[in-house]
Amino acid sequence: MRPKIYLFGDSITEESFVEGGWGSSLAHHFSRTLDVVLRGYSGYNTRWALKVIERVFPALESGCGGDADAPLAVTVFFGANDACLPDRCSAFQHVPVHEYKLNLHSIISFLKKKWPKTLVLLITPPPIDEDARIRHPYVENPMGLPERTNEAAGYYANACVAVAEECGIPVVDLWTKMQHCPGWQTAYLSDGLHLAHSGNRIVFEEVVMKLREGGLSLESLPVDLPLIADIDPNDPLTAFQES
Amino acid sequence: MRPKIYLFGDSITEESFVEGGWGSSLAHHFSRTLDVVLRGYSGYNTRWALKVIERVFPALESGCGGDADAPLAVTVFFGANDACLPDRCSAFQHVPVHEYKLNLHSIISFLKKKWPKTLVLLITPPPIDEDARIRHPYVENPMGLPERTNEAAGYYANACVAVAEECGIPVVDLWTKMQHCPGWQTAYLSDGLHLAHSGNRIVFEEVVMKLREGGLSLESLPVDLPLIADIDPNDPLTAFQES
Repeated sequence: MRPKIYLFGDSITEESFVEGGWGSSLAHHFSRTLDVVLRGYSGYNTRWALKVIERVFPALESGCGGDADAPLAVTVFFGANDACLPDRCSAFQHVPVHEYKLNLHSIISFLKKKWPKTLVLLITPPPIDEDARIRHPYVENPMGLPERTNEAAGYYANACVAVAEECGIPVVDLWTKMQHCPGWQTAYLSDGLHLAHSGNRIVFEEVVMKLREGGLSLESLPVDLPLIADIDPNDPLTAFQES
Repeated sequence: MRPKIYLFGDSITEESFVEGGWGSSLAHHFSRTLDVVLRGYSGYNTRWALKVIERVFPALESGCGGDADAPLAVTVFFGANDACLPDRCSAFQHVPVHEYKLNLHSIISFLKKKWPKTLVLLITPPPIDEDARIRHPYVENPMGLPERTNEAAGYYANACVAVAEECGIPVVDLWTKMQHCPGWQTAYLSDGLHLAHSGNRIVFEEVVMKLREGGLSLESLPVDLPLIADIDPNDPLTAFQES
């Protein structure tokens, strides 16, 4: 069976197979080596993610699958909703930052207990363009104030990076990375929160780099069945003999 | 476990997660309902597909998975390579049309025996723009003649449609559908064979329509975990209680 990578997260994961999305780019990149499995849940924070994690990654019948079913990697990409401010219009999605940290630890523990060898890769929430958030509210916003701020998103991003260090796992610090580019607000974000085309590209490139550092790359992964370039035009069928 | 759709075919399937590709569009469309699993093998014809089909869709250990592992649908999209002419530069990929028909029958029988309830959806090869094929040869082409012709592709498309009728299964007749549009050569194809952006769009739309006719649509498929729109902002956690 071809190995898998799960993408577990919120809307930025659920929408990752949009045209030019980071999820579909991963699936294309690994088209003969890995299955990229989408587990994105729009609007979810880490508290809700923990409520459903056993349904997202269900136990197999005993004796079936087992370690063979373990994915090679899982990306865990939450925080954008946790970081909603508790006194603004999306307060119901807010999770305090100390709970966010604990929840990330619990998600990682769950995955590592289930699949000890699986690479768990954290991704921080992206930066926030507050002006755009005022123009693109998800719910009615009578206050006219952004439901998320870039400063608050930064606290959650820092917390995510800290959790990765505490657990000894890799992290893509998207909040910091994106802000290195002047004009990130419109270059990388479509509505002040979700990813524009170039933002998707960054996530794809960063995830590929972290996977590579973790030993998962096109060079190291076996190809599923002979490549056309390795098939002898004078005797094609020998390529398909089972060893 | 979330149900699956397999995409089984040649390069037009393998490349279906490119930006705007029909595979990634399907994955995006069904982002909360189905896993779209890529099993595309560039250059393969139906003869080679049959040599590897048991490795593409391996048997599970007895007692494990079983019917629960059956995908809801499999797209079978071969013929573009079978239709290479036997006296041109890609002759090693050629499969005679009568063998192509038999091979399609064998592929369908394999899938139907393994998973009797699974919807098997055939897709015919696309039309061929011969001028573009001369400009984009896959292998050295000293003759300067196209390795595929539109007329030959049409024989294979007709054979594919006939097999679908013989088996009582749905088919997307891409060869005919695309030629309804004047300028299909460049509107739908990127190199006279593979799909341009608009060509990918057609395949996506046709596959979604055939799946819908087979009872598989966003309206009929259960959503994986509560949608944000169905979560009560005043009491979010009730949405996550297991019934």
